[in-house]
Amino acid sequence: MSARIPVAVIGATGAVGQRFVQLLSTHPWFEVAALAASEARVGQRYADACPWVVGGEMPAPARDMVLRPARADALGCPLAFSALPAAVAGPLEEELARAGVAVSSNTATHRMDPDVPILIPEVNANHLALVEVQRRRRGWSGLIVTASNCSSAPVTMVLRPLCDAFGVRSVHVVTLQALSGAGYPGLPSLDMLDNILPFVPGEEAKLEREPRKMLGRLVGGAVEPAPIAISAQCNRVAVADGHTVCLSIALERRATPEQVAEALRSFRGEVAGLGLPSAPQPPIVVRSEEDRPQPKRDRDAGAGMAVTVGRIQPCPVHDVKLVALAHNTVRGAAGGAILNAELLVARGLIEGVS
Amino acid sequence: MSARIPVAVIGATGAVGQRFVQLLSTHPWFEVAALAASEARVGQRYADACPWVVGGEMPAPARDMVLRPARADALGCPLAFSALPAAVAGPLEEELARAGVAVSSNTATHRMDPDVPILIPEVNANHLALVEVQRRRRGWSGLIVTASNCSSAPVTMVLRPLCDAFGVRSVHVVTLQALSGAGYPGLPSLDMLDNILPFVPGEEAKLEREPRKMLGRLVGGAVEPAPIAISAQCNRVAVADGHTVCLSIALERRATPEQVAEALRSFRGEVAGLGLPSAPQPPIVVRSEEDRPQPKRDRDAGAGMAVTVGRIQPCPVHDVKLVALAHNTVRGAAGGAILNAELLVARGLIEGVS
Amino acid sequence: MSARIPVAVIGATGAVGQRFVQLLSTHPWFEVAALAASEARVGQRYADACPWVVGGEMPAPARDMVLRPARADALGCPLAFSALPAAVAGPLEEELARAGVAVSSNTATHRMDPDVPILIPEVNANHLALVEVQRRRRGWSGLIVTASNCSSAPVTMVLRPLCDAFGVRSVHVVTLQALSGAGYPGLPSLDMLDNILPFVPGEEAKLEREPRKMLGRLVGGAVEPAPIAISAQCNRVAVADGHTVCLSIALERRATPEQVAEALRSFRGEVAGLGLPSAPQPPIVVRSEEDRPQPKRDRDAGAGMAVTVGRIQPCPVHDVKLVALAHNTVRGAAGGAILNAELLVARGLIEGVS
Amino acid sequence: MSARIPVAVIGATGAVGQRFVQLLSTHPWFEVAALAASEARVGQRYADACPWVVGGEMPAPARDMVLRPARADALGCPLAFSALPAAVAGPLEEELARAGVAVSSNTATHRMDPDVPILIPEVNANHLALVEVQRRRRGWSGLIVTASNCSSAPVTMVLRPLCDAFGVRSVHVVTLQALSGAGYPGLPSLDMLDNILPFVPGEEAKLEREPRKMLGRLVGGAVEPAPIAISAQCNRVAVADGHTVCLSIALERRATPEQVAEALRSFRGEVAGLGLPSAPQPPIVVRSEEDRPQPKRDRDAGAGMAVTVGRIQPCPVHDVKLVALAHNTVRGAAGGAILNAELLVARGLIEGVS
Repeated sequence: MSARIPVAVIGATGAVGQRFVQLLSTHPWFEVAALAASEARVGQRYADACPWVVGGEMPAPARDMVLRPARADALGCPLAFSALPAAVAGPLEEELARAGVAVSSNTATHRMDPDVPILIPEVNANHLALVEVQRRRRGWSGLIVTASNCSSAPVTMVLRPLCDAFGVRSVHVVTLQALSGAGYPGLPSLDMLDNILPFVPGEEAKLEREPRKMLGRLVGGAVEPAPIAISAQCNRVAVADGHTVCLSIALERRATPEQVAEALRSFRGEVAGLGLPSAPQPPIVVRSEEDRPQPKRDRDAGAGMAVTVGRIQPCPVHDVKLVALAHNTVRGAAGGAILNAELLVARGLIEGVS
Repeated sequence: MSARIPVAVIGATGAVGQRFVQLLSTHPWFEVAALAASEARVGQRYADACPWVVGGEMPAPARDMVLRPARADALGCPLAFSALPAAVAGPLEEELARAGVAVSSNTATHRMDPDVPILIPEVNANHLALVEVQRRRRGWSGLIVTASNCSSAPVTMVLRPLCDAFGVRSVHVVTLQALSGAGYPGLPSLDMLDNILPFVPGEEAKLEREPRKMLGRLVGGAVEPAPIAISAQCNRVAVADGHTVCLSIALERRATPEQVAEALRSFRGEVAGLGLPSAPQPPIVVRSEEDRPQPKRDRDAGAGMAVTVGRIQPCPVHDVKLVALAHNTVRGAAGGAILNAELLVARGLIEGVS
Repeated sequence: MSARIPVAVIGATGAVGQRFVQLLSTHPWFEVAALAASEARVGQRYADACPWVVGGEMPAPARDMVLRPARADALGCPLAFSALPAAVAGPLEEELARAGVAVSSNTATHRMDPDVPILIPEVNANHLALVEVQRRRRGWSGLIVTASNCSSAPVTMVLRPLCDAFGVRSVHVVTLQALSGAGYPGLPSLDMLDNILPFVPGEEAKLEREPRKMLGRLVGGAVEPAPIAISAQCNRVAVADGHTVCLSIALERRATPEQVAEALRSFRGEVAGLGLPSAPQPPIVVRSEEDRPQPKRDRDAGAGMAVTVGRIQPCPVHDVKLVALAHNTVRGAAGGAILNAELLVARGLIEGVS
Repeated sequence: MSARIPVAVIGATGAVGQRFVQLLSTHPWFEVAALAASEARVGQRYADACPWVVGGEMPAPARDMVLRPARADALGCPLAFSALPAAVAGPLEEELARAGVAVSSNTATHRMDPDVPILIPEVNANHLALVEVQRRRRGWSGLIVTASNCSSAPVTMVLRPLCDAFGVRSVHVVTLQALSGAGYPGLPSLDMLDNILPFVPGEEAKLEREPRKMLGRLVGGAVEPAPIAISAQCNRVAVADGHTVCLSIALERRATPEQVAEALRSFRGEVAGLGLPSAPQPPIVVRSEEDRPQPKRDRDAGAGMAVTVGRIQPCPVHDVKLVALAHNTVRGAAGGAILNAELLVARGLIEGVS
C-alpha cells in the first residue's frame, strides 16, 4: 500500500469523478489521497457531498475524505485526475500543471490545444512527445494529457488498425449513446422512456474532429490531423452505460470483411508489453454473432476497457460497415484517463515517481 | 354507412392486423365486413382470439365478428387488407387476386415481383400501371399492391423530393427501430431493458433494395430500379412506436441544408388534390428544433401518416445529413396499405366499386 | 366561442400547467384567456417560455400568449386554474380569491385548511358548502377549491361507494406512481431505468390524510374526517402516466368480491345528471381480466377521467383487495381541477357567470 | 479442484438453470460435472443449446459440456440442482432421490409436500429433520429439499426475526417483481415498456402459503404452519433483477421502528458459524436512507444473497411497515438452492460426501 502513488481526483462529486474514485479504489499503482470539488463543497465529507450513482457502494476509504480545493498545495499529489466541468477546467488544470502536477484530464477544454495530446495509449502513445513541447512552451514542470470524448474512443480504436492495414479515407458514424454520458442528474426520465433523442450537445463536432487528431502524424512538434473525412450523427438512447457506434468506412485499399475482422482482432496497440494494469488484452474483441455487440452484454468486456466489434459487412456505399461498442464512463472517460496516467508512469513523466 | 365499401382484413389477429382493424374502424370509405385468421382460429370470436396490443380498446363492432378462412368466397369483399405472415402470404394473396379481390398487402412476399408495385402514393402512384401488366400476365381480375417495409417508408419519402430537386447518388442509413415492428409478443423485455440490439432480421437487405424499386422509372411495363447505392445498418431500440432513420446523402447537384429543407417542406406528392382521406397534408413535416424528430413527440404527426424530418446539416462525407421519423405501424404498415387502397379506389381499380 | 368563460392558468409553464392548457384548449365551457408564470418569465411568449412535455403539440392559440403576473387585475378572468408550486401558492391564491376570482387549485397548500374543500365532484360535491364558510370567514368574494393529491384521487373514488355500501374501517395502500407525477424535469433517467424508487416525497402523509377529509361528514360548517385508518407506502416506477394503487380494505360489513364489484360498477356519484363535460360515465370502470388495470392500457379510460379497477379478490388479512388506476395528470391533477370548476359553474359560484 | 463435489444442473438451459451454472462456476465446494436438459436437447453442446441471458459470458468449462438426460445413471453425481419446469419436475426429481441423489430444487412442485422442507438456512435449518421422514416414508436413499418462491424469500427472512422478537399476527404484502422472475423469453417488451402488470400467475397464492410453512413449527415429524394471516398483491415492473416487497405487519407485541430495525439488523440466522460459503453476513442489511432499498443499487448486496430493508415506519393500520428487496434469481432462486445444498453438506446428508 505504502508504495502506491498518491493521486487526487478533482471534480470528484460528479458522475465521472465518482467513476474515477470507484476504479482507483482497487488500483495496484495509485491510491486516492485527495478529493477536490467546487468551492461550495470544500470542507464537506465526500459521503455527504455526493449521491453515489455509479453502481455498488462508495468505497469505504473515500467516504470520510474531506473535499479540498483544486489547488496543488491543497492536494499534495504528483498526479491528478480531472473530471472538472469544461467551463472551469481551463485555468484550474493549467495552474496544477504549472505547479508540477501531472494532470490526466477527461475534460474537453484542452483537447484541441496544439501542444496537448488526446491520448489513447493503444492508438497514439507516441503523441506523448507533445508533453516536451508543452513544458518548454508553457514553462510547466507538470503536464496535461487528455482522454478523448466518450464516443471518439471506440471510433478511434477501430480506425487505428484499419488505417495501418488498409488506409481510411472517410467514415460515417451514427451513435446510440448511453444516459450516463450526460452525467447526473442528466436526462429527465420523461424524455427517455419510450423515446430517443437525436441530439447530443456538442458531440457531433467532437466526433468529427478528435479522431483526426488522435490518428494524426507528429510532425515537428505538432500533430498533423489525419486526412480522414468524418461525418457524425449522435443519438441518445435509453441505455445506462455503453455507447454503440455504427460505422461505414471508405478504405484506401479494398478489404474483405474477413480481412477487416482479422486486422481488428490482431490489433495489440503501441503499449502491448508495457504491463499497464488497465490495458485490456486484446484491446478489441471481435464477435461473430449476428446480434452483437449489445450494451448490456458487451460493455464490461475487458473490465470495461475493451472495444467490442461485430456485424462486419461489405458496405454498398463505402467499403465496410460494422458496429462497435465501448463502456462510455470506463474506456470512454475515467478508465481511459487512468490508462493514460499509467502510460505517464511507465514513461517516467510524473515528477518524483520513478 | 351503407355507402362504405365492405373490406376484409386477413391476418387480423397479429399486431399489424389489429392496427388495420383499429384504423379502419373510423374510416370514411371502408367498413370492415370480414376478418380472417389462420385455420386454428377460424370460427372464434375476434375478441376471444387475440389479445389487443395496439392501444385503446378493440373497436366494438369487431369484437363479435367470427374469424373466417382467408378465401374469397368466405370473405365476400372486393377489397382485402393483408397482414399475413410472409411464410403463408404468397399463395393466399394470389388466390384472392385471381378470384377478383383487390389485395392491399403489408407483407413482404410479393414486393419484389416485377409486376407488383411497392406503393407509396405520394412517391410513385404512377407505378399503379403495373397492375395492368399483372392482370394481363397472371389472368387475374383482382390485383395485388404492396406497402413498403416500415423503415423503407420514411427513407423513400425523404428521397423522392431530393431525387427530383437535386438527384441522389448514394445514401447511408442507420435505423433506430421501434419494438412494435417485431409484432407481438416480439422482443423479450429482458433483451430490451437497458439495451439495444444491433440487428433486425432481414431489414438491412430490404432497406437496400425497396427504395430503389419505389424510386425507379417505369420502362416498358417494368420498373427500372433507381441507380442509388444504399447502405443500411439497422438497430432495435426501446421505443414502442416510431422508427427513426439517420441519413447521410450524396446528391448529384450540391444543395445547402436550407435548399434541402425547402424541397422537403414543399413536397406534396403525386396524390395531392385527390382527396384521399389518409393522405397527410403535408406528407413531410420539417422541424427546426435541434432535438427533433423524437419518436414520442413526432410519431403521431399527420395522424401517424406524416414523416417528420429534422437536424438537416451539411455532411463532411456526403452532401447532407438529416434525421427522419415515421410511425412504423401506421405510415410504415397498416396506414400505408390503407392509403394504397384509397388510391386504388380513386383510380377505379376495385371491382364493382366506382 | 364568445359564450365561453374566460379563464386563467397560473403556474402555466410546469407540467401540470401545460396539462391545463392542453385540456382546456378543447373545452366547451372555458376558454384560456390568460397565462401566468413566475416573475422571471412574465412578458415572454408561452411558446418561448416552456418546453412542451405533455404530448402532442402546444395548442396554437396558446403559443403567442404573453405570460402575465398572477394578479387578478393582470389576469382579468373570473376563474383561475392554479398549478403553482406549493412554496408560492399560498398568498397568491388567497389574493386572487380576495379579489373575486374563483380559484380551482391543484396545489397542496390550502388542501387541509378547515374552510377549503378538497373536491372530487362524484365523491363530495356537498363539501362545496365550505365555500360559504370560507367567504364569510375570510371576507372573500372569490373562493378557493382544491383538487386532491394524484394518488388520493383513485383511492378516494374507490372508497366512496364502499363506504356507502359496506362501511370502511381501514385501508392499506401501496402505490406504483408514474414519472409525470414528479413534474418536469422530475426524476433522472439514470434513477428510473431498471429501477424503482420506494419513496415519493410527502406522498404517504397526503395519502393517509386527504381521503379521510374528502370522505368526511360536514358538521356545523366543518368537515369531520372519516374514521378510517389509512396506511400508505408509495413507490415511483418507470411509467410515464397513470398511478396504480393496490388496496387492501377492511369493511364494516362483510361483502363478497362480486358485491364489491357491483358497488363500484353501479357508482354514479353526486354529480350524475348535471351534465358536467369532464365527468366520465361511469366514473369507475370495473374490469374482469386477470391482468388489468394496466397504466398503458387503462389510463385513458373516460378520457383520462375514469378510475379503472380490477383484481377484486377476498383478502386473507382484511376483507377485500383490489387494484385501481387513474391518470395522474388528468383525473389526478388538471382534469380533476377542471371538473371542480365545472361544478362551481353548475352551482352558480363563479362571479359574473350564471 | 479434485476435492470439489461433482454436481449436476438439471433444467440447465433456462434462465434459472443458467444462473446455477454461473454461480457454481466459482463455487469453492461444488464443481459442475453434468448438465441435463429436456429430451429434445440431449446430445447438444450447452453453448449451442441455449442463449446466455444471465449476464457476463457463459463459463468456459460449461460451453462444451454435452447435455444429458435427467437420470441418475446419466448424471453420475451425488448432488443435483433442479431448475426444471414445474410441469415435469415431479417424477424426475423423485426418481433422482430414489436413486440416491440429493436434489436441491428451485421448482415449486414438491414445496408443499408434507415431508419436503422449503428451506432457507438462516430461517428454518431445523426443518431439515423432514429429510429423515421423507427417506423413511418414501424409501429414498437420496432426498429432495426445495428453495422458496422468489418473493417468499425476502418476506420470510424479514418475518423470522420479527416472529422471534415480537410475534407476527398478520402481513399485507405488495410486490414489485423483476422481469427475470418470468424466465426467458418471459414478458414481451411491448407489455413492459411504460407499463406495469398487476398480475404474476400463481404468485399470490404461493406468497400467502409458503412463508407460513417455513415459519412453522416442527411437530411430530411434520410442519405446523405458523398462524400468520398473509395477503399478497403481486405486480410485475420493468426491472431486470430484484424483487421489491412492501410489507405492513401486525405484531403480537408492540414495537417501535427502532426496535424492529434492531431485530432485523442483529439477525444472524440458524447457520451463523457453519461457514457456508454462500451465506451472507449479515443476512439482512438495514438501510436508513429514505429512498432505499432500490433494485439497481441493492440487489447485489451480499453477492445477491442478502435481503436489504429500508423505510421502516409506524403503520397506521398494522404496527409497522417497511420495504424489503432481494435478488430474485440469486437469493430467490439459484443462490438459495445452492445455500441449501451447502447446508446439506454441512449436515452430512449427501451420500458419499463427508
